[in-house]
Amino acid sequence: MRDDLRINGERLSARIARLGQVGAIAGGGVARLALTDQDKEGRDLVAGWMREQGLAVTVDAIGNVVGVRRGKEAGPPVMTGSHIDTVRTGGRYDGNLGVLAGLEVMATLDDAGVETRRPLAVAFFTNEEGSRFQPDMMGSLVYVGRLPLEKALATVGIDGSTVEENLARIGYAGGAPVGQGNRVHAYVELHVEQGPVLEAEGFTIGAVEGVQGISWTEFTLTGQSNHAGTTPMRMRHDAGLVAAEIATFARRLAKELGGHQVATVGALTLSPNLVNVVPNRAVLTVDLRNTDEARLKEAERRLFAFAAEVAGAEGVGLERRALARFEPVAFAPELVSRVESIARGLGHPVRRLPSGAGHDAQILASICPACMIFVPSARGVSHNVEEFTSPVDIEAGGNVLLRLLCELAG
Amino acid sequence: MRDDLRINGERLSARIARLGQVGAIAGGGVARLALTDQDKEGRDLVAGWMREQGLAVTVDAIGNVVGVRRGKEAGPPVMTGSHIDTVRTGGRYDGNLGVLAGLEVMATLDDAGVETRRPLAVAFFTNEEGSRFQPDMMGSLVYVGRLPLEKALATVGIDGSTVEENLARIGYAGGAPVGQGNRVHAYVELHVEQGPVLEAEGFTIGAVEGVQGISWTEFTLTGQSNHAGTTPMRMRHDAGLVAAEIATFARRLAKELGGHQVATVGALTLSPNLVNVVPNRAVLTVDLRNTDEARLKEAERRLFAFAAEVAGAEGVGLERRALARFEPVAFAPELVSRVESIARGLGHPVRRLPSGAGHDAQILASICPACMIFVPSARGVSHNVEEFTSPVDIEAGGNVLLRLLCELAG
Repeated sequence: MRDDLRINGERLSARIARLGQVGAIAGGGVARLALTDQDKEGRDLVAGWMREQGLAVTVDAIGNVVGVRRGKEAGPPVMTGSHIDTVRTGGRYDGNLGVLAGLEVMATLDDAGVETRRPLAVAFFTNEEGSRFQPDMMGSLVYVGRLPLEKALATVGIDGSTVEENLARIGYAGGAPVGQGNRVHAYVELHVEQGPVLEAEGFTIGAVEGVQGISWTEFTLTGQSNHAGTTPMRMRHDAGLVAAEIATFARRLAKELGGHQVATVGALTLSPNLVNVVPNRAVLTVDLRNTDEARLKEAERRLFAFAAEVAGAEGVGLERRALARFEPVAFAPELVSRVESIARGLGHPVRRLPSGAGHDAQILASICPACMIFVPSARGVSHNVEEFTSPVDIEAGGNVLLRLLCELAG
Repeated sequence: MRDDLRINGERLSARIARLGQVGAIAGGGVARLALTDQDKEGRDLVAGWMREQGLAVTVDAIGNVVGVRRGKEAGPPVMTGSHIDTVRTGGRYDGNLGVLAGLEVMATLDDAGVETRRPLAVAFFTNEEGSRFQPDMMGSLVYVGRLPLEKALATVGIDGSTVEENLARIGYAGGAPVGQGNRVHAYVELHVEQGPVLEAEGFTIGAVEGVQGISWTEFTLTGQSNHAGTTPMRMRHDAGLVAAEIATFARRLAKELGGHQVATVGALTLSPNLVNVVPNRAVLTVDLRNTDEARLKEAERRLFAFAAEVAGAEGVGLERRALARFEPVAFAPELVSRVESIARGLGHPVRRLPSGAGHDAQILASICPACMIFVPSARGVSHNVEEFTSPVDIEAGGNVLLRLLCELAG
């Protein structure tokens, strides 16, 4: 590959805009929930572009679509891609960028007459968002054999219909095999950061080291409802106070653990929630994330110990329930380093960072070396119609993807 | 008065039970919202008892009912009483006890043929609870001239009708004058504690030193909604965290100020209130109470300073709104001491304590020496159908009231 080879940023941005018209909603956003008619229309458009570019397109039994560009040799492809389903009020970039940038890389290679040693593949995986059918990342989970096909097909969505029914309805119940037989040489995913770090710190490219492990805990605190005027402080069993103590502790914990530890109390509800009544019940959630499983466990241990201690001191009952738990995923260090050095070579400010959100790349990482390239999200906004990444940053990310795919494909 | 004179506890408890049948609701409670048909029925019953006992009954322009028992001399009466309106799901004791105990004291004096020097009066004041018409303690406020009659009459209730219309409808728009011309020698109110202190500490009688001043503040915090995974701690503007910091500070503040300072965060609402989104908005209330105005002001000052500091540090906007503010009321020290000594003389364990709730006595305190006698509330429960005070404690309170009224009336 020639060193001066670059993607066509305008062509890529034009395709992002075109795909953004499918399921467009007010404010510049997109609603293409997985396996809806809008998703079908988006799929048809992108699969059509794949075919126009001469890719060999396959659709598997869970509706994942893969377009392969032949290499000089046969064997497992170097794969890129992402997803094109969106949340209900999503943006144009989340997922879509990764798929269309993959197509653009191939178009660039076609234009320049470059033939790679290994095949290149671009994929879009079914139902990454999980907004209509749980779990999220369903297509990639089935692709790598971590979620049984039958279970995924039987999943009932928020409107009462199954994945299987919807795949059949939109014509994307394909014949390509799923499961552990799938072989991929390496997987690279370009994605918008969906967080504020790159923009705030002036970086164009993020070399994603891994995906944070997630621990969601719901605490239910049961105290005693009392008159705010007549009940002395020493006689209170204030469920709201214990909730507030846990919330402030979560922040201290994140500070003390440092690194990539984050802790969020997003939801907190008091009962009876009246000015002059000591709350007898509080329910709050704590969202802990870390790229390091040992540290995440340490954070959980300390949080649970603190919650038990403060509830005990206040004479408040404590129940705790795990709402979600995922271990962190580390991307292949060799690939992360390559993203860094390629970005630097192209003159783009680059920093390492973790991904705080889940992505298909973390699922592909269980069958092959995988990594991700992030480009900035304006104001960190995502899953929102105001999601935006500048064409300049998109082009930069596309060029890092181009070079990395070429290096990996030889 | 003979030292061995005692009220008839059974007669008093029977009247409490009888009045509790008017507006009775499931669970043993009572719903007699001010100036409803149920209130009229209760008023008719109690005013009838007053007349049966030969009291001179007057009804004033705001519906306060006063029954006077002649003394050897004319002049301002020694007054006792309370209210007979209830909250929507109230108990049988709150207010009613004070009125019926006053009647019982007079019946006891009648039975024993005791004539006091000063007249004795028993009153029930209109709309003490404030559940249907705001403000609460309306009748006593008008009685002492602190709330203009016309303003009170024009008050529109939760169902859209006025106080004036309802007084006329139930036949309690009386002709007796209201305002500063009313003269009372002293006012004593027997009431259930509505808090847990007496029962928990094994006291039968509370000598109420005063009524806590009340400061209600609503804080509205405006931060930034962000992804719980992708937003580093240092970039957050977490409105929920600031709310939790304020809530835990309120508890520390009450502990540090000590004495009768109480602080309660009863209401706290987050937006969007989702597990994985940093809250962009939090609204919370802080209820501060103290019997000492200077200390209450100090508590407010420190709370507001802390809230501003912690919001500033997090980059979160802070608005604060006073929802209510009442200065503390101190009862006449001489009367508080008499309650103590009388209770001791009768062999009842007694302690001084403040009232955390508002009472007509605090309003009467602006025109004459006033005090209150508390008897225990089981488990501190009040404004609840499960409100309960044992007949033994009721009798004890009634006897303290008997003796104090006799001493004051001479």
